[in-house]
Amino acid sequence: MVLRDVRPGVRNEAAVAAVIEALRGALGDKLQTGQAFREQHTHTTTYLTRQLPDAVVFVENSDDVKAVVRACSEHGVPIIPFGTGSSLEGQVNAPSGGISIDFSRMNRILRVSPEDLDVTVEPGVTREQLNVYLRDTGLFFPIDPGANASIGGMTATRASGTNAVRYGTMKDNVLAMTVVTADGGEIATGSRAKKSSAGYDLTRLFVGSEGTLGVFTSITLRLQGIPEKIGGGVCAFPSVKAACDAVIMTIQMGIPVARIELLDEVQIRACNAYSGLSYEEKPTLFLEFHGTDQTVTLQSEQFSMIAEECGGESFRWTADAQERAKLWKARHDAYWAARALRPDLTILATDVCVPISQLADCVAATHADIVENDFLAPIVGHAGDGNFHLSILFNDKDPADVARVEAFVERLNRRALACGGTCTGEHGIGQGKMSFLEEEAGPALGLMRTIKRAVDPKNIFNPGKILRESA
Amino acid sequence: MVLRDVRPGVRNEAAVAAVIEALRGALGDKLQTGQAFREQHTHTTTYLTRQLPDAVVFVENSDDVKAVVRACSEHGVPIIPFGTGSSLEGQVNAPSGGISIDFSRMNRILRVSPEDLDVTVEPGVTREQLNVYLRDTGLFFPIDPGANASIGGMTATRASGTNAVRYGTMKDNVLAMTVVTADGGEIATGSRAKKSSAGYDLTRLFVGSEGTLGVFTSITLRLQGIPEKIGGGVCAFPSVKAACDAVIMTIQMGIPVARIELLDEVQIRACNAYSGLSYEEKPTLFLEFHGTDQTVTLQSEQFSMIAEECGGESFRWTADAQERAKLWKARHDAYWAARALRPDLTILATDVCVPISQLADCVAATHADIVENDFLAPIVGHAGDGNFHLSILFNDKDPADVARVEAFVERLNRRALACGGTCTGEHGIGQGKMSFLEEEAGPALGLMRTIKRAVDPKNIFNPGKILRESA
Repeated sequence: MVLRDVRPGVRNEAAVAAVIEALRGALGDKLQTGQAFREQHTHTTTYLTRQLPDAVVFVENSDDVKAVVRACSEHGVPIIPFGTGSSLEGQVNAPSGGISIDFSRMNRILRVSPEDLDVTVEPGVTREQLNVYLRDTGLFFPIDPGANASIGGMTATRASGTNAVRYGTMKDNVLAMTVVTADGGEIATGSRAKKSSAGYDLTRLFVGSEGTLGVFTSITLRLQGIPEKIGGGVCAFPSVKAACDAVIMTIQMGIPVARIELLDEVQIRACNAYSGLSYEEKPTLFLEFHGTDQTVTLQSEQFSMIAEECGGESFRWTADAQERAKLWKARHDAYWAARALRPDLTILATDVCVPISQLADCVAATHADIVENDFLAPIVGHAGDGNFHLSILFNDKDPADVARVEAFVERLNRRALACGGTCTGEHGIGQGKMSFLEEEAGPALGLMRTIKRAVDPKNIFNPGKILRESA
Repeated sequence: MVLRDVRPGVRNEAAVAAVIEALRGALGDKLQTGQAFREQHTHTTTYLTRQLPDAVVFVENSDDVKAVVRACSEHGVPIIPFGTGSSLEGQVNAPSGGISIDFSRMNRILRVSPEDLDVTVEPGVTREQLNVYLRDTGLFFPIDPGANASIGGMTATRASGTNAVRYGTMKDNVLAMTVVTADGGEIATGSRAKKSSAGYDLTRLFVGSEGTLGVFTSITLRLQGIPEKIGGGVCAFPSVKAACDAVIMTIQMGIPVARIELLDEVQIRACNAYSGLSYEEKPTLFLEFHGTDQTVTLQSEQFSMIAEECGGESFRWTADAQERAKLWKARHDAYWAARALRPDLTILATDVCVPISQLADCVAATHADIVENDFLAPIVGHAGDGNFHLSILFNDKDPADVARVEAFVERLNRRALACGGTCTGEHGIGQGKMSFLEEEAGPALGLMRTIKRAVDPKNIFNPGKILRESA
């Protein structure tokens, strides 16, 4: 089901040539058409087919973005915004060619207000860059999707990650942005007020729009105080069910856990092998607590009692930074450990998200599917949000293996939808999940199409993503 | 500036008659056209002119809602959703007549999942009804705008209130909803997953849309565990600036205060007079802390130190429920105390919201304006969010006084916008703030119009609200 939507789209060679000529005149060597640049700016992170843009523009400011949008709008040529290229569902592919907008030079931090706990950045700023910049203010930006993604890309995919359970997702942490719209003008979607009831929530419309409604030129984010103390812990459980029960109780009791991550026994085994560790090869929760000495201790003790009640085995925790890094090593290495299980194979990284009451059943059923069909597919979950990931290892040169994986991914998504969940908690739709979005949204898809057509009447913004063109 | 937008709109008598006839046939005496019903279902909460609908339909289920939307769509007749009528900016007025949809009979709680901390309700459920229902589950719905509003109305205006500083606004607490759209079909905007990256955020598009994009038929909400312990406190400060400094430090330190409310000295004086109390007549903060015995004590002690540092006078707090109610009495009575200052006058209740670093200056400038122009206008603020309210007492029979108030409100809004804020933190735009939204949104208003036209091409959903028809 995945490959179907990664076919090439319709190209308009004359229009593309006209745009390239116009932009070369206006922007000089900020525009690049070399093969290496084009290849760099395409999908690279899973097995989805690469689809190259015709040119890459290294924008340096809003005016550059406007110039690209105006030229592309005039000629009806696709625009594909590009942050760091770490998206997983083909969001930066160019199925109909067009212009990739590279934001790596728009990476200034425009202002910061420690009093208001907010900051305004250009879209190319990466989360690590931002946190290094903020260190002296005592503040940090909490969203951590794993990769050192750009803030623009994280906003576009409504990213989240390990500590969303405490700090929310990009939806909750973007206060406002400026966006270049289809007419080439620039709008501000909101103010710096912490809340507002002033008209439609344009900010949230653009968060998660994956470049299909406009191009961001700045983003204002909420910040958090760096916790005085951080505690970390790890606890093995006899079953996924027991681990999920501990998660549910933790959330229900309102323990403000900062991270609560589930690794299944396959993932633990991979981590032991990869890093020479000796975790028990059982479903395991990794936890992090943010607060003061007192509250971190309190939270750890509260979780300890829960873990015991759920059959957890020897919850170990520490407020020492080095010790914590050791306890968390398996979690940090998870991706590379999975990859190392079979370096000759390709990884398909996919995610779904379900109500946490359904997490144990959904993971267990997925696990049974994996065993029954003999897949190698470790599971890592942001358990506190009911969000879990699979790293499916397979041979992308073997059409039979690809077909098997696609059928498995289809079953996974149907299973998540059947229990009230969503086909993606944080990776987005891109090209890879358009068919599942159709199943999930049902008649609401029509409203998404209505909005897309109204906001982007010429379909220049990242066409062929989120919504299938054919349907 | 306010009255200008409350002029009657264009009416189509024949179309209205056709809809009433059709709906009477389909819905029998669920449709009412008596004057008393029509008057009840119009704006009553400030001095904005009442504008009556032509009929009221007491819907009992989704099918009734669909019947109304289909008839009104066919004939191009306005639909005005009505919860409890507690909105403040004319949201339930019917400037062009039409059909008021009363949700009081759609007040069922459809399902609750204590494990997932969520609940699905019909739009007519009120927040007090919901919390009474939830009591045995150990959960509660935290959003508290003061009035016993309906969940549908709170969703429509993106309501918040006193404890938004800890629990967020309706934007953060609506997981999903079902909505009848302009074609008379019903869509689900999301799933029960805690987070999702699946396509456009339709949920957030409808939250705060004030009935202008569709009619809600059910709403799924996040819930919170009832705190084991609640502490309350009160502290007077030598100036608004000092009180605001204490608020900023509290937020910056990450103390998870549940409520932090500012009353200015005029409001305190009103409360003393109204309830025979003896608070010091100074700017005063009212606080509430939610947690366990330990964390409530900890938070109270932390705030106590902050208050001292900012010149606060004798922070008093308690974890005893009765004592807490006593400490908080002035805050609870604030609205009635303001009203009692001059029972012969009318109250205009208005709100703005600014970055908290700007709160002290914005309140101080507003206070100076009040003094200079001799207004009676106590100030109450949800200080932790930078959101403050004025209850402006004036003679609505005197055109000169009305003009003076309108000019004052205009200055207030311009002041909030000038310091990076918004023209409304929680009351919404309705009719009263359309001109300020235009100033605030600037070119983004065009995008709001594009969305409105695409989603509601016949302009049947609450016309004359949020976006001016003429402009």
